[in-house]
Amino acid sequence: MAKSVPVSPLAPKSYPDQLSVEGVRFATAAAGIRYAGRTDVMLALLDKGTQAAGVFTRSKCPSAPVDWCRAKLKGGKARAVVVNSGNANAFTGKVGAKAAKLTAEIAAKATGAPLSEIFIASTGVIGEPLDATKFDGVMDQLVEKADPEGLLDAARAIMTTDTFPKVATAKAMIGGVEVTISGMAKGAGMIAPDMATMLSFIFTDAPIAAPVLQAMLSRSVQGSFNAITVDSDTSTSDTLMLFATGAAAKRGAPKITQAGDRRLAAFRKALDGLLLDLAHQVVRDGEGCRKFVEVRVEGAMSAGAAKRIAFSIANSPLVKTAMAGEDANWGRVVAAVGKSGEAADRDRLAIWFGDFRVAHKGLRDPAYSEEKVSAYMKGEKIDVRVDIGLGKGAASVWTCDLTKEYVAINGDYRS
Amino acid sequence: MAKSVPVSPLAPKSYPDQLSVEGVRFATAAAGIRYAGRTDVMLALLDKGTQAAGVFTRSKCPSAPVDWCRAKLKGGKARAVVVNSGNANAFTGKVGAKAAKLTAEIAAKATGAPLSEIFIASTGVIGEPLDATKFDGVMDQLVEKADPEGLLDAARAIMTTDTFPKVATAKAMIGGVEVTISGMAKGAGMIAPDMATMLSFIFTDAPIAAPVLQAMLSRSVQGSFNAITVDSDTSTSDTLMLFATGAAAKRGAPKITQAGDRRLAAFRKALDGLLLDLAHQVVRDGEGCRKFVEVRVEGAMSAGAAKRIAFSIANSPLVKTAMAGEDANWGRVVAAVGKSGEAADRDRLAIWFGDFRVAHKGLRDPAYSEEKVSAYMKGEKIDVRVDIGLGKGAASVWTCDLTKEYVAINGDYRS
Repeated sequence: MAKSVPVSPLAPKSYPDQLSVEGVRFATAAAGIRYAGRTDVMLALLDKGTQAAGVFTRSKCPSAPVDWCRAKLKGGKARAVVVNSGNANAFTGKVGAKAAKLTAEIAAKATGAPLSEIFIASTGVIGEPLDATKFDGVMDQLVEKADPEGLLDAARAIMTTDTFPKVATAKAMIGGVEVTISGMAKGAGMIAPDMATMLSFIFTDAPIAAPVLQAMLSRSVQGSFNAITVDSDTSTSDTLMLFATGAAAKRGAPKITQAGDRRLAAFRKALDGLLLDLAHQVVRDGEGCRKFVEVRVEGAMSAGAAKRIAFSIANSPLVKTAMAGEDANWGRVVAAVGKSGEAADRDRLAIWFGDFRVAHKGLRDPAYSEEKVSAYMKGEKIDVRVDIGLGKGAASVWTCDLTKEYVAINGDYRS
Repeated sequence: MAKSVPVSPLAPKSYPDQLSVEGVRFATAAAGIRYAGRTDVMLALLDKGTQAAGVFTRSKCPSAPVDWCRAKLKGGKARAVVVNSGNANAFTGKVGAKAAKLTAEIAAKATGAPLSEIFIASTGVIGEPLDATKFDGVMDQLVEKADPEGLLDAARAIMTTDTFPKVATAKAMIGGVEVTISGMAKGAGMIAPDMATMLSFIFTDAPIAAPVLQAMLSRSVQGSFNAITVDSDTSTSDTLMLFATGAAAKRGAPKITQAGDRRLAAFRKALDGLLLDLAHQVVRDGEGCRKFVEVRVEGAMSAGAAKRIAFSIANSPLVKTAMAGEDANWGRVVAAVGKSGEAADRDRLAIWFGDFRVAHKGLRDPAYSEEKVSAYMKGEKIDVRVDIGLGKGAASVWTCDLTKEYVAINGDYRS
């Protein structure tokens, strides 16, 4: 399937050397869920006392694993995460709920952890029953070989049509002690808010209580995973989870139990940066993409209006095909602003591609050089900026171009 | 541009013989707006006393001609319609408003009609100034050669990336007298509600007063032009107008001045059918399309909810690429239902492709034959039906598949 597809031209050129987080170990296996010749299940083992937070798809038809995680998250604690690729266990009815439970039971048995502290996620084809018994054959071996250095391999095991594994890491100080945040994501298709519209698992050794983690994650996702779109399609399986082992407490990091704790400032910033990095990687691996596009809207009536206008532009097939064609077609940007439903005044609009203003005050900028803008459009990163000229609301979202390869990949996914 | 593209495989196999409407004459010319070697302007001349109604784009950035028509429609009367292709005169600022006015002035002078009864529309590239003086050279000749039989040629002159002209005709009885309704449309790209997201001009000899025409048109558009989508992009120039010359009064047709008049029943039905026919033709000429797709949603909480769910399915790039791939990927239909934001219960959903039920009660229908469904998906017309299982709301919308050709056409439009 994804194998014959070359790696996205927008993939990172290198990966971080050091991803490990104290208190977290990873292992992967080939359980034979759907693919041959590759890993398709990853286990993350978490030290006792690990705190958990999560944000999930807003789809009204969520997958069985999403139902499972939502229910278990109430406890706020986690000991293991099991994720498989190849089958989403979505729209699989009661059989699907049973498969989700069986997966967790197999992991609970192998790890000795309570069932309520096992989280699961599945990604891949929708509507096919998932044979969870396949996990039984590999779980003991996963527990045995789990390794603190295994995050990159784990990121590989959860790929579907992704062309590269997505990982990121960051350091931050809490009360004078350095803590680490590392995470993985998978994306590729069905990437649109709200929310994450992909799978992502973030780990830290910081000693932060679950309610505080949850508050930080819910806020941070707005400017990152909830600000990206590949194809405007929201998945049934979107899952973003954040786990804090607390291992840094041994090195003197203070336990944080209040969301308003000022000692979290640097951690918050690092978490925001890490989520944005992963979200950008998801876009940079958008199915068939060649261009990474940032849409910045300023001067809207509110930040919410700015974001809705930005998404109207970022989701427009006509804007996205123009990007693929390296065509500075700002007329389509105007049309996308117009259809957003938000307040706009044609005669106050200004539009830039990169630093080149192509339109202002309701018409083409007479000073703009078609030649220079055309050269700019050939680049790998395209910045589209729109000033609505009405207020102070601003927002950025990120997307990619819409190419023939997107159609090819998605026109032949199941066969 | 459009010339090298072959005619859509979904084009009608023949055109009606008789399209003429008493009191309406058409002429076309090559004004050299943008294209070489083809007509690009059409004039419709309307007998004195013709009543007018219109529905326009909801874009917040409408084109100058849309602004013009909205203002003039208050008078309710029309004597001429001038439409050009090649340039949309949209996002052209004050220069655009002047070009619109100049176009109308040229037509008013040539026809001797008041400026307030001239309607105009432009379609094509956005953001390029329209040189309206070009109409000056052809207008007298257009008036001179205007012909009652010219509707099909007029439909050809307003094409942009359309691969075939779109016309339709219908007869209806009003008070025992037969009247005719004929019309044209152009579409191809940027086809999504609301509303028409294309140009369409309908003519009848029925003697119906402007307010009654307006009420009928506004209602009829909901189930036709407001129920189609090609690419979810709404144009800045969408214009649908209905003109009634009243010529049938000479043959004894009663003058209708009240929207509730029961003698309009057959006319309404004929108008609904004609608008739906034209709307379907627009979809059947969707850029790069190979499949005509009907999405029917039943069992939703309301008709509005059903329509929103249907559009969520019809606009999903993943559903549309699956159609292009002849893939009965009902999992993507589930995902599109889930992301619509409307009430849905995964475990009550049922989905059909044609007569084949592929999913029910939250999982794959065990009885469905993959082979038979695959054969069905190879057809030119695909019916997708979803029963939400919650209420009585139902709606149908129409779309086409998303192919590599769509990307090719739109990735290289301006160059």
